[in-house]
Amino acid sequence: MGFFITFEGIEGCGKTTQLRRVATALEKQGFPVVVTREPGGCPIADAIRGILLDAANGAMVPTTELLLYAAARAQHVAEVIAPALAAGKIVLCDRFTDSTIAYQGYGRNLDRQMIQQLNALAVDTLKPNLTLLLDCPVKIGLGRAMQRIAMLEQNKEERFEQESLLFHERVRDGFLALAVAEPERFVVLDGSRTVEETETVVTEAIAARLPRS
Amino acid sequence: MGFFITFEGIEGCGKTTQLRRVATALEKQGFPVVVTREPGGCPIADAIRGILLDAANGAMVPTTELLLYAAARAQHVAEVIAPALAAGKIVLCDRFTDSTIAYQGYGRNLDRQMIQQLNALAVDTLKPNLTLLLDCPVKIGLGRAMQRIAMLEQNKEERFEQESLLFHERVRDGFLALAVAEPERFVVLDGSRTVEETETVVTEAIAARLPRS
Repeated sequence: MGFFITFEGIEGCGKTTQLRRVATALEKQGFPVVVTREPGGCPIADAIRGILLDAANGAMVPTTELLLYAAARAQHVAEVIAPALAAGKIVLCDRFTDSTIAYQGYGRNLDRQMIQQLNALAVDTLKPNLTLLLDCPVKIGLGRAMQRIAMLEQNKEERFEQESLLFHERVRDGFLALAVAEPERFVVLDGSRTVEETETVVTEAIAARLPRS
Repeated sequence: MGFFITFEGIEGCGKTTQLRRVATALEKQGFPVVVTREPGGCPIADAIRGILLDAANGAMVPTTELLLYAAARAQHVAEVIAPALAAGKIVLCDRFTDSTIAYQGYGRNLDRQMIQQLNALAVDTLKPNLTLLLDCPVKIGLGRAMQRIAMLEQNKEERFEQESLLFHERVRDGFLALAVAEPERFVVLDGSRTVEETETVVTEAIAARLPRS
C-alpha cells in the first residue's frame, strides 16, 4: 500500500535536486510516483506556504509559525499524501515532520513535546517508510542556497536564509539527533559531495528499502 | 492594566454593529479603545483570515481550519491584544476563543479538549474580562447575514454562510453552553431585538463591569 519517502536537511543540502532525480529514475522503472513538498503540496497549503516564507512577515511569532506549518501539513496529508499512498504510489516529499522539529524545536527552541503533539494532530498515524537526511556543513548549504537565490532573483522566499548561522547549526544538530533516535527510519548521507556522487548513494539507499513487487 | 471585552455569537447576531457603537461611546467618554477582530487584526492574521474565509477553499479539512484559527490568534494576541492591554487600553474584540469552541467544537464536532489546548497555546494566559454573547435564533441571524452579503455584493467571505442550518444551531447551542459554564465572564443578551434596544443593554452590561478609574 504505497511507500512514503521524505527528504530532509538544512537549506542547500541538495535534497530537492536529489528528490527530482530519484523521481525521474523511479518513473523510468515504471513506478507510480507522486512528488510533493512541504510546506505546500496543494492549493490551501501553498497559500499557507506563501504566508510562511514571505520575508515581509518578519513580525511572525514562533507559535504562529508552528501552527501554520501544522495547518499546511494537515491539509497536505489529507488531500495529497494519504490518498496517493492508499492508491499504492511512491510519495517523495521534500521536507516533512522532521523539519518542523529541527527548525522550530531545535532552531527556535520551542517546546519539542508540543511540536510532536501538533505533528501528530496534523498527520494522524502517518509515518514515512524512509527518511533520507542529506547532511552537510551549514556554510556549504547556505552558500548554495544564497547562490540559488541570486541566480533566480527570487527575493521573496528568503525568510529562513536570513536567520543566523547559529540557528542553522542548531537545525543541523536537530536533524542528526532525530536520525540517531530513529535509525530504522533514517538514512543519513553526506550532502556536501557532488550531485552525481550523492545520487549514487541515494539510489542505493532507496533500492535497499523499497519493497519488491 | 487594561480591560478585554469580547463579542461573540452566530452570524448576523449583531455583535459587530454593537462593538462599533460601544467603541464610539467609550471613546467619547475618554477611554483609550482598541477595536479588533478575529480571525485577523494584524497583517499576518489578516492573510490567514483570507485563506479561512475564501469560499474557493471548500476542500479545507477541519484540522487545518482549526490550526489556522489558532495561528491567526497567536499572532493577534502577541502583536495587538497583549500590548494594548499592557498599555492600559480597553480592547474590544469581534470573536475570540469562544468562537473556535462553538464553531469547530460544537459546529464541526472536533475534539473540544484539543481545541482548548490549541486556544491555550495561542493565548497563553490571556482571558477576556467580559464576554458579551449576543444570542438570537439562527434563522434571524442568517437572514441578516444574507441580506448584508447581498447588499455589499461581497461574494468572497461566505464560506460559513454556506453551512447548513443545523450546523449554525449547534454553534448557537455551543455558545450558550460556554456561557452557562462561565457565568462570571459571560453576559448573554437577546440579539434579535432592534439595534437601539440591544445597545442599551450592552452599554449597561459594560458599565456594570468596567473598573472605575
